[in-house]
Amino acid sequence: MAEYKVPLQDIHFAYNDVLDFNKHYEQLLAADDATPDMVAAILEEAAKFSEQVVSPLNAVGDVEGCHWQDAKVSTPTGFKAAFDQFKAGGWTGLSQPVAFGGQGLPVSLNTIFYEMLTSANHAWAMYPSLTWGAINTIKSHASEALQRDFLPLMVQGEWSGTMCLTEAHCGSDLGLLRTKAIPNDDGTYAISGSKIFISAGEHDLTDNIVHIVLARLPDAPEGVKGISLFIVPKYIASNHSDKKNIDHHHSDLTLDQNALQYNNVQCGSIEHKMGIHGNATCVMNFDGARGYLIGQANKGLHCMFTFINESRLGVAQQGHGHIERSYQGSLAYAHERLQMRAPHRVLPDKPADPIIAHPDVRRMLLTQKAYAEGGRLLNYYCAQQVDIHNAGDTEQTRKEAEEELALLTPIAKGFLTEVSMEATQYGVQIFGGHGYIREWGMEQEYRDTRITSIYEGTNGIQALDLLARKILPSGGEALRPFAAKVQAFCQSEQGDRMKPFQALVNQQFSDWLTLTMDIARRGKDDPNAIGMAAYDYLMFAGYATLAYFLAKSASAANRKLMGKDSAHIDAQYYENKIAVCQFYFDRILPRNAVHASCMRAELNSVFDWQE
Amino acid sequence: MAEYKVPLQDIHFAYNDVLDFNKHYEQLLAADDATPDMVAAILEEAAKFSEQVVSPLNAVGDVEGCHWQDAKVSTPTGFKAAFDQFKAGGWTGLSQPVAFGGQGLPVSLNTIFYEMLTSANHAWAMYPSLTWGAINTIKSHASEALQRDFLPLMVQGEWSGTMCLTEAHCGSDLGLLRTKAIPNDDGTYAISGSKIFISAGEHDLTDNIVHIVLARLPDAPEGVKGISLFIVPKYIASNHSDKKNIDHHHSDLTLDQNALQYNNVQCGSIEHKMGIHGNATCVMNFDGARGYLIGQANKGLHCMFTFINESRLGVAQQGHGHIERSYQGSLAYAHERLQMRAPHRVLPDKPADPIIAHPDVRRMLLTQKAYAEGGRLLNYYCAQQVDIHNAGDTEQTRKEAEEELALLTPIAKGFLTEVSMEATQYGVQIFGGHGYIREWGMEQEYRDTRITSIYEGTNGIQALDLLARKILPSGGEALRPFAAKVQAFCQSEQGDRMKPFQALVNQQFSDWLTLTMDIARRGKDDPNAIGMAAYDYLMFAGYATLAYFLAKSASAANRKLMGKDSAHIDAQYYENKIAVCQFYFDRILPRNAVHASCMRAELNSVFDWQE
Repeated sequence: MAEYKVPLQDIHFAYNDVLDFNKHYEQLLAADDATPDMVAAILEEAAKFSEQVVSPLNAVGDVEGCHWQDAKVSTPTGFKAAFDQFKAGGWTGLSQPVAFGGQGLPVSLNTIFYEMLTSANHAWAMYPSLTWGAINTIKSHASEALQRDFLPLMVQGEWSGTMCLTEAHCGSDLGLLRTKAIPNDDGTYAISGSKIFISAGEHDLTDNIVHIVLARLPDAPEGVKGISLFIVPKYIASNHSDKKNIDHHHSDLTLDQNALQYNNVQCGSIEHKMGIHGNATCVMNFDGARGYLIGQANKGLHCMFTFINESRLGVAQQGHGHIERSYQGSLAYAHERLQMRAPHRVLPDKPADPIIAHPDVRRMLLTQKAYAEGGRLLNYYCAQQVDIHNAGDTEQTRKEAEEELALLTPIAKGFLTEVSMEATQYGVQIFGGHGYIREWGMEQEYRDTRITSIYEGTNGIQALDLLARKILPSGGEALRPFAAKVQAFCQSEQGDRMKPFQALVNQQFSDWLTLTMDIARRGKDDPNAIGMAAYDYLMFAGYATLAYFLAKSASAANRKLMGKDSAHIDAQYYENKIAVCQFYFDRILPRNAVHASCMRAELNSVFDWQE
Repeated sequence: MAEYKVPLQDIHFAYNDVLDFNKHYEQLLAADDATPDMVAAILEEAAKFSEQVVSPLNAVGDVEGCHWQDAKVSTPTGFKAAFDQFKAGGWTGLSQPVAFGGQGLPVSLNTIFYEMLTSANHAWAMYPSLTWGAINTIKSHASEALQRDFLPLMVQGEWSGTMCLTEAHCGSDLGLLRTKAIPNDDGTYAISGSKIFISAGEHDLTDNIVHIVLARLPDAPEGVKGISLFIVPKYIASNHSDKKNIDHHHSDLTLDQNALQYNNVQCGSIEHKMGIHGNATCVMNFDGARGYLIGQANKGLHCMFTFINESRLGVAQQGHGHIERSYQGSLAYAHERLQMRAPHRVLPDKPADPIIAHPDVRRMLLTQKAYAEGGRLLNYYCAQQVDIHNAGDTEQTRKEAEEELALLTPIAKGFLTEVSMEATQYGVQIFGGHGYIREWGMEQEYRDTRITSIYEGTNGIQALDLLARKILPSGGEALRPFAAKVQAFCQSEQGDRMKPFQALVNQQFSDWLTLTMDIARRGKDDPNAIGMAAYDYLMFAGYATLAYFLAKSASAANRKLMGKDSAHIDAQYYENKIAVCQFYFDRILPRNAVHASCMRAELNSVFDWQE
């Protein structure tokens, strides 16, 4: 099985040549430490850690899975040692505030790191990424006292975090949740209820697990307006920030009352899943567990959306990671495997050619590659918006970034996870029968990525979020700021070779706006027209957005090829960027015609059918 | 988990109302026993067996898998008992000649039965279906003596069969195979070599396993022209057809020399696979095993194609079976699961509606349903051609049926297995997080069907078979007989409501012919144009073919609704057929515009890319 190699050349191309992160960092407040040299050094170390420590555990995690016994969960062999190394390297705090022990670097740097981690091992990478989400939620919404009590140890990786939303009867529909929070006399709350599908809900990597839990106060209004958010730690420390008090070797659920006290939170079982076996998916039972309110009562869902939005960008990266890893495996195999004679022989002296010479194999590889490159740019661009939202130099730029993120988050999450299923499917297909066998690792990619279109809001929910919550209520205005940037690119001078790409991107965005207005009009007559268009709208948006980023990639490559250093560069590398873009425009982007035609189709057949 | 229910109403609709099997049987030679009453009775019993005996073992097989120890393979709990019941019921010989102990019914009846078996339990159903393939190969190509020695016990289900083609270095490219066959003095051959991915290569369901093996004679020409076909049984009987000699309780590899003698065929290991865990995928080692030549030396691949073609139709059914089962599970869950308020409330007094009221869920269900109904008709139509090929009343009708089968086999296999991935993906998606969990069974459908686009010739191979082997060499003529039938339907009087469907089908087939000529022209300049078009050509053909069958289905439903008994029928049932067809034409068939545009796209990007 081919191990994952961090595509550092592609990352640097995206980072420097297409999206100009160095300039981006210069414009941020408080990104002084992110100098080009520092960033390059961090990425190199991050790549080593991902390749050498995390990636080799990917298959181990899949085969061994997690094991539950007496409410304890053990992670696969090596997971804990890798996590200890991760913690010791200070990686947990890379983009966390210096005030809490982090390194204070921009979030986007962590995004690039997370690309490596999740490509290397999705299941393992979920443990730290959930912790990051929990940290950010506490940082954004909890009181200073709670921040002081929880953040330092979480930033150091001593404690991990989770998000506890789903209950058996409510997944997408959080308004139905029943977990209760009864006020205690001391200002804390007694949390009772059962949560399901809690990733990393219980494990053996950290001393304590800090659950971020949605629950209802006794007098809460029904539905989503009566949900509050709580911190519910597995253990309660008498002095939370005093690390000395933690018993590092606790082996059962009752600890010294003076140090860490068990809080009535118990893992009831873990799920048998199709994939991500190395990450424990837990049923978590809260039985009067002590919880601390985050933010205002009944405003919990708003606070939770910090976590949810960030997680969605993380899921987009998981989808992308599987695309990249599948592509790498497929490419290597396609070079090695000799089978059938290609139309144009590559090894005329041998009875068969490498399968990469066969057109249909190239079709699959180029599709994977286009998603891998376009997906990377979309994710990095989103990360830049997170940076600007956090540390843009004016209120206005911060607000604009937030608005662009609101638009792009469901596209990145929904679209990249959809095409990840296609790309990993090709990974299996290129390997033929060997793709279906565990030892080659391709089928794991196909299984592992399958969760990404479901969790953190199914892609159906992403589609409704994009169309019905964000774009239509704004009368389409939500799309315009991003569309304006795209239009500016399309009208800029990028050389003759780029003009056809620019024209096609421009057409896509113009069609996108027209379709939006059409749906708005039809939705006034029948709201089903919106729900019925949403999935196609999301996919249309995704293909159009990727077209833009791949055109940007081709333009950046073209600049290299036309530049004054062109004699000293690896010209084929840059020609490949243009070929990938051309392939995408020729053979993938046409799918948007189908999505447009589905959005325009009549509704009658869909509702006449009653089975 | 919802168990599989045989959709008898849909099967009868396809059988009687759309494809008129009764008339079809009347026109066959030697199908006198297939009277309407007899057929109905058989289908009812077959349904009971599939639902009650085979389906409950589907999850068991997945969880337990097969186990290898000391060259023996044990199948999951219950597999053997179900097989014994199957055998006792005489099901193994349903469509096999009376002369060998079968019931002599038309093959198409077995096809309908196989739909039930494979929907119920793909892994289990492979054991008998491989045996059927082996029987037919022996029946078609082996000497009378070999037929007499092997067929009776195989038809009775006492012995099972396999096909042994693949070796580690040759999957699609059989010309590379190395297994040797050295002539013995007695007219038999000593077979030596190692085969991989042999489904049902070793198991505990039958007393003996009859391997159909491709190997090379010492003086054989290189490549596919030097391949011969052999029968290589696991045990050699001193008198093959004397069932009394078989030791029913053999527990190791050496048996009484006077009865069954161990032939040097050994299962070296079994694979850990993504799915179909209940079927053992074996490495088979032949170490001078005695083999019997089938047909002429060096003409083995031709003989093997009897098995291969039949298996491909079986794989099309497997793909279809997963679509049907996913649809059934999804539909039941979509009615039960209450989540979010739908645009038009169904349960206005409750806080949420069943998810079937949500447009996007209906989109997924209707897509599954369209594939399930269209796929069934395509498979049954192919089965009719097999019947006619076997027992048509004139040489001419038999030849025409064979030609249609040559065209439709790669379409059925390739297209139905591709859309099966989509349909089972929706099965997981409709269940949300529960879809990713083992206990609900949806993820098993997604995993199990993934093999169908790979084995018996990857879909890339199916695409080349269709376009480059069958259609282009005929100058497009291979398409015309089927296209003529379609055109006749399109020009027939089916009532006003059907006219738009007829016009669209007609357009599809006209475009199909035009595209064929375009590719032929481009292929003369560059053979890569053919390889690059092949996958899109296959998918185009599949969508067009399904459009035809769904239009036939709608027409049959429309006849019912317009008929004189219309007051006494379940009108909604027939309206649903028309709605499914309308949905397909509105929202799925437009994909062919993309496939057409990909076939017309330039090749440069694909070959400029060199990575």
